[in-house]
Amino acid sequence: MRKILVIGIGAGNPDYLTVQAIAALNKADVFFIPDKGEEKAALRQLRTDILERFVEAQDYRTVVLKTPKRAEAGTDYRGAVDDWHAKLAEAYRHLFETELGEGECGALLVWGDPSLYDSTLRIIERIIATGFSLDYEVIPGITSVQALAARHRIALNRIGEPVLITTGRKLESEPAEDAVVMLDGEQAFSRVVGEYEIFWGAYLGTPEEILVAGRLDEVSGEIERLRREAREQKGWIMDTYLLRKLETGKE
Amino acid sequence: MRKILVIGIGAGNPDYLTVQAIAALNKADVFFIPDKGEEKAALRQLRTDILERFVEAQDYRTVVLKTPKRAEAGTDYRGAVDDWHAKLAEAYRHLFETELGEGECGALLVWGDPSLYDSTLRIIERIIATGFSLDYEVIPGITSVQALAARHRIALNRIGEPVLITTGRKLESEPAEDAVVMLDGEQAFSRVVGEYEIFWGAYLGTPEEILVAGRLDEVSGEIERLRREAREQKGWIMDTYLLRKLETGKE
Repeated sequence: MRKILVIGIGAGNPDYLTVQAIAALNKADVFFIPDKGEEKAALRQLRTDILERFVEAQDYRTVVLKTPKRAEAGTDYRGAVDDWHAKLAEAYRHLFETELGEGECGALLVWGDPSLYDSTLRIIERIIATGFSLDYEVIPGITSVQALAARHRIALNRIGEPVLITTGRKLESEPAEDAVVMLDGEQAFSRVVGEYEIFWGAYLGTPEEILVAGRLDEVSGEIERLRREAREQKGWIMDTYLLRKLETGKE
Repeated sequence: MRKILVIGIGAGNPDYLTVQAIAALNKADVFFIPDKGEEKAALRQLRTDILERFVEAQDYRTVVLKTPKRAEAGTDYRGAVDDWHAKLAEAYRHLFETELGEGECGALLVWGDPSLYDSTLRIIERIIATGFSLDYEVIPGITSVQALAARHRIALNRIGEPVLITTGRKLESEPAEDAVVMLDGEQAFSRVVGEYEIFWGAYLGTPEEILVAGRLDEVSGEIERLRREAREQKGWIMDTYLLRKLETGKE
């Protein structure tokens, strides 16, 4: 049977790779590399660096998948994503059939952890649902949420309290819990009202990392400026942040 | 200046250690090991295994801290934890002063990740707040939440949706989001009403790992039985689970 290893390669810093992930990289015969238009050259380079540094036998094959473009989400976000996953599943199934021999092992490298805001596992389930015989294994990786917390040297939760992991799109204007925001293209923090602290990080785990922490009302403008400048300079930005309601502001 | 490395050593499986964590282990002159009454022999052994396997110079020092007992929480959970942290901070400060030379580097090993339901960072902040001069660095690790997701081969979040990480104590009877529950000594899932799936795991990352997944109403009894039997047999249990509201049950 063909096997796919879904390997979390951590957020940015190659030193975030686990012993398990390195062993998995060394088991793979073929690496399937998505060529997302939006994936930045810096990220491509990081992935190449990881393979060169950690894979011992340098005769592995890589197969590039030109990923189909996702339709603009409009009002039907779930529907647009669903269509896109269907196309990706078809494209990957074709590659697995043609590029992966019986008994061979392929690898998909996932930034961060495959369990958090990543579609790889859903795409594999879709492929299997079409009747394609495939075994797969998941290897966890350090997420940007953990990189954020480590670099700010903070706990995500308060003592005994929950923490919400959410997206810019879903962030409420007055988040009740400690909330970590991912995938925020629109600086959703600027919509937040009430007294919050923010712990913000961009390009986490990389040499270009930027960190800002403070009262949201005091540092919000600075973060917007840093975001804008960094995005202009590099052409892209990836950032994550924790919002924590100030104790004095709690009812 | 003295330095402390707060190292996330992952959940159970020594292969969850990152390259960064292994480098940190090898930088430490002294390992401060808490001797919690409640920490089980199996966990102590795992930690010893990690040091033996990954620390190259085997002449490191270990200093054991008999941790003070936490008072029963009663109604004032925060207060009880706060008192306990104060005692821990005092004990650690004393050890850092007496066992760690100027310019030396100590390490604290944290199960999972120091940012999630762990008190080490709070204790270090308390020590620094007393005027003790200390530098510290945080190294993230794979949490039991990620081990759970990887072993069940699931994403924690649904497409574009948030996920709540909470405790058994704080779990609502009808959790709205996908909710991951940690630190649940009382099988809080049995209080949940409504249509949910559960993805449950105990002793995650270890050879004794147990996994159960299914509709909550169908597997709840089985999980309770497995928990009871495993706890009787081993004398302790550590488990984590994801509750996901069934799509059909959604309004």
